[in-house]
Amino acid sequence: MEQILRLDMGTLTHRFEPLPEAYALLGGRALTSRILCDELDPTVDALGPNNKLVLAPGLLSGSIVSSSSRISAGAKSPLTGGIKESNSGGNTGWRLAQHGLRAVIIDGAAPVGQWFIAVISRGECRLEAAGDLVGLGTYDTATRLFERFGAKSALAVIGPAGEQRMNVAGICNTDPEGRPSRICARGGMGAVMGSKGLKAIVVRDPGANIMPDTIDLPMWRENAKVYAKELATSPAIARYRNFGTASTLELVNKLGGLPIRNFSRGQDAQAEAITGLQMAETIKARGGQTSHSCMTGCAIQCSNVWVDPQGKEVASSMEFETNTLLGANLEIFDFDAIARFTKECNDLGIDTIETGGAMGVAMAAGALPYGDVAAVIDAFGQIRTGTVLGKLLGAGAATVGRVLGVREVASVKGQVMAAYDPRVIKGNGVTYATSPMGADHTAGNTIGAKVDHLDPQGKVALSRELQIVSTVLDMLGFCVFARAVYATTAEQFRGLFAARFGRSITDDEIRAIATETIRREIAFNRAAGLGPATDRIPEWMRTTPLRPHEAVFDVPDEELDRIWATD
Amino acid sequence: MEQILRLDMGTLTHRFEPLPEAYALLGGRALTSRILCDELDPTVDALGPNNKLVLAPGLLSGSIVSSSSRISAGAKSPLTGGIKESNSGGNTGWRLAQHGLRAVIIDGAAPVGQWFIAVISRGECRLEAAGDLVGLGTYDTATRLFERFGAKSALAVIGPAGEQRMNVAGICNTDPEGRPSRICARGGMGAVMGSKGLKAIVVRDPGANIMPDTIDLPMWRENAKVYAKELATSPAIARYRNFGTASTLELVNKLGGLPIRNFSRGQDAQAEAITGLQMAETIKARGGQTSHSCMTGCAIQCSNVWVDPQGKEVASSMEFETNTLLGANLEIFDFDAIARFTKECNDLGIDTIETGGAMGVAMAAGALPYGDVAAVIDAFGQIRTGTVLGKLLGAGAATVGRVLGVREVASVKGQVMAAYDPRVIKGNGVTYATSPMGADHTAGNTIGAKVDHLDPQGKVALSRELQIVSTVLDMLGFCVFARAVYATTAEQFRGLFAARFGRSITDDEIRAIATETIRREIAFNRAAGLGPATDRIPEWMRTTPLRPHEAVFDVPDEELDRIWATD
Repeated sequence: MEQILRLDMGTLTHRFEPLPEAYALLGGRALTSRILCDELDPTVDALGPNNKLVLAPGLLSGSIVSSSSRISAGAKSPLTGGIKESNSGGNTGWRLAQHGLRAVIIDGAAPVGQWFIAVISRGECRLEAAGDLVGLGTYDTATRLFERFGAKSALAVIGPAGEQRMNVAGICNTDPEGRPSRICARGGMGAVMGSKGLKAIVVRDPGANIMPDTIDLPMWRENAKVYAKELATSPAIARYRNFGTASTLELVNKLGGLPIRNFSRGQDAQAEAITGLQMAETIKARGGQTSHSCMTGCAIQCSNVWVDPQGKEVASSMEFETNTLLGANLEIFDFDAIARFTKECNDLGIDTIETGGAMGVAMAAGALPYGDVAAVIDAFGQIRTGTVLGKLLGAGAATVGRVLGVREVASVKGQVMAAYDPRVIKGNGVTYATSPMGADHTAGNTIGAKVDHLDPQGKVALSRELQIVSTVLDMLGFCVFARAVYATTAEQFRGLFAARFGRSITDDEIRAIATETIRREIAFNRAAGLGPATDRIPEWMRTTPLRPHEAVFDVPDEELDRIWATD
Repeated sequence: MEQILRLDMGTLTHRFEPLPEAYALLGGRALTSRILCDELDPTVDALGPNNKLVLAPGLLSGSIVSSSSRISAGAKSPLTGGIKESNSGGNTGWRLAQHGLRAVIIDGAAPVGQWFIAVISRGECRLEAAGDLVGLGTYDTATRLFERFGAKSALAVIGPAGEQRMNVAGICNTDPEGRPSRICARGGMGAVMGSKGLKAIVVRDPGANIMPDTIDLPMWRENAKVYAKELATSPAIARYRNFGTASTLELVNKLGGLPIRNFSRGQDAQAEAITGLQMAETIKARGGQTSHSCMTGCAIQCSNVWVDPQGKEVASSMEFETNTLLGANLEIFDFDAIARFTKECNDLGIDTIETGGAMGVAMAAGALPYGDVAAVIDAFGQIRTGTVLGKLLGAGAATVGRVLGVREVASVKGQVMAAYDPRVIKGNGVTYATSPMGADHTAGNTIGAKVDHLDPQGKVALSRELQIVSTVLDMLGFCVFARAVYATTAEQFRGLFAARFGRSITDDEIRAIATETIRREIAFNRAAGLGPATDRIPEWMRTTPLRPHEAVFDVPDEELDRIWATD
């Protein structure tokens, strides 16, 4: 019988509850959002004791079926003021599901200045004082926790940014080798965890490679096998495996939609220095690792380990979004620099996208120089120590623009855009504008579609479809990259579902849950005060053309407003 | 025939237009809001070229009838993200109305870094380069402009804060002696003026004490005379005349609703050092001026001139809101210090309420020490030079809280509350929550009502009534303090109206225009993305009791939501 674990950080108590029947078919984002909608007053202060942080693995998480154990973190977001779900790889979702936990709900708040860790295993939870971990980066925190609780534990940790309740703060989940490098990054979920006085969650090794309770193991294995074969033979997956997410850069730069110099240009020849091919060749030449799994059992292996010229590990993992927002967007086209930034972000426990966006705006204001690696490293130091500039950067790009007087902030609902300028990749513009999550590419990334990205026609329908499919994957626990094989493996996903829960489900039923999830999230946002006019690309991107295509975002408002209208 | 003057700062052109018939009975706030609702896309960037700044005297402005020539400044607010009107004394409204101007509409934006002044007289307008004024405080700016255009001109000027487009920036209007001390302060109207590249508006002396075109001068004079007599004999007005707005402090402190130490206490014995009586006695003993008129002809004379022990002028005027937000709220109970702060605010061109609120939050965060006069003076210097901390303070209290991690920010729609804690003065809490203007006491101040302020019962009806009356006064051009005699002089206001426009108007008709104005403003806010849930007192004030009464704000949400429901 699956359970929900409730932690009350105000009273320092916990309670295991049986999974309510109403939540039987919900997992990941579908469950975090449902719990928040059921239990939260949407007007609560996101960093107050009445917000709740919900961690939930996917419906099908808990086995080593490839890329099926994403962990969703959900809460009211201090960044957007609306509902948020941010998911990540690493082993937290896998371990929680192994212990039969469909969700962990963290409520209340410890007295300011008191810090705790939660140590979880099947049917057990202990809150322990964590004063010794205060101020530590995520790497040192992880080292100490692995020493105490065993290297096979999974950790969900916040860094100095989460302790300071910064909007850029995420929750860092450990990868199979124990790096706290897989981050539920977006929307300040680490700030919410920090506001509760929770420094880390330790999910202990169950002691054997157990599966969650599954009805029909042979059926499970058979479907897993077909799915694994699809992953092994998909050319799209091979691209991720060989060249990582970094491989996307070449396409976006070619299309002219790559954020360069705070989203002021869409294309730059210098970006050729940070392509996926360049990355993979350098890593291989130096003895690093490409084709790395971010969670146990993942066969997509888009992750990697960047090493210095001497072969010493610098950071895992070099990602397209990071390479762009903390690279091209700052006019830094240098993998060695970006690797140092990546490591800083992981250790601080912050979102590379929001942080890169914030630094880009600070550069546009003249508060930092463009292209200056040392200045960026110094800025990370200021985030760590919490200077006024550090705290300002930690508040995110929109707030930096508000304070430093920069209109050109590429954000929706206060959350900065990912590495696709919506003036060129218009489908992603629709996703940024209409997703209840704010400007989040993972909510429905259209870059892979074979369409004319510059043409506004049809992009609302495209975004809608991909937002639904992404929510389906988020709810099942699958990595969004599994979308590459979703068309051919949807049957296997349903088969895994049937094997796990002993009942069949249709594609329509799954999609209906996803669509209802999105609608509930939008209703939450409305009740939180975010009116329909917040579902917009900022005015300057509708009026200031982006070089070289001189494109503006021109999907009509009326079309945006109809995206979730009942058919 | 009255006119509207349109200035396009993008093309540096202007145009006089006849007053449209639809606006014939609109003035002040009713006109600024109507023009914005008619002409503005509510989703425009408040600091972009598509926002409009509208200046409008009241319907009855332009004569020396006491306190009848307030100037309203309206625009989409960069502080609240909604519609804003902020009105002030000084002579701008009087002079504009003398020139037959019902409104000045400023559109577009000059290229960044280019600054202009607009010089206005009847049927004439010149835009002149103002590079020599850039960076000057409002006092030096005023000195230079009076030298060029004559001391009888009226000026509307922005200071270094408006040039930096800070949310705390207001528009400073000159008083009869030429001090730029009467500020359309709230909501960042100075930032909007700065975003357009307009450093100052000079409204020239018409050369004689002319009246605007008036149909029936004897009727005008007769009604003005009765009204003047009411003002002369009203005990409430006498209190303002003798002790200024500062006289309100004693009552609010006694009630336990005075913001002290960032709204963490409601009462403090030290506040006895900054009462109206103390103020008046010190000013008189030192040879300063009480009973000062902020606009030509005002008989209320709530203004004053604070002088140092040697009798040298420090600042005009010492006000209750300033004494509290920049005094008690910062644990500074010292008029000489507050006078220096007042002068700094006037010269920077900033709102003393928002700035005091921002500094209080910074003190709660530990970024400034409570009670430290030198630290506050230094902070003003940082606002002037635009350091990161200075720009942060200039962004207003809510942004300071967001960046520095302070939940306890007393704001609604991002605008900080005036000097009445809503947990005790609950009617003002209703006004803060439900006014489309954000937490603005002038929108409907209930402090003068003979009610139990702690009791939530009846406060929605009280606030509603006072919001309507305040809007009536804002639209006619009368100072809100004229409300003290409104019950007995409403007939005279209607008489003045009939004399001026040659037609009668009923109280119901006037109130209907006011109510429609508020409804339009709310519709603007909704279309700008501010949902009904933004019409709320912040959660912490609904849950954290205020000493000494241990009171929370407990007017039910449902009552707040019904305040503007059709009867």
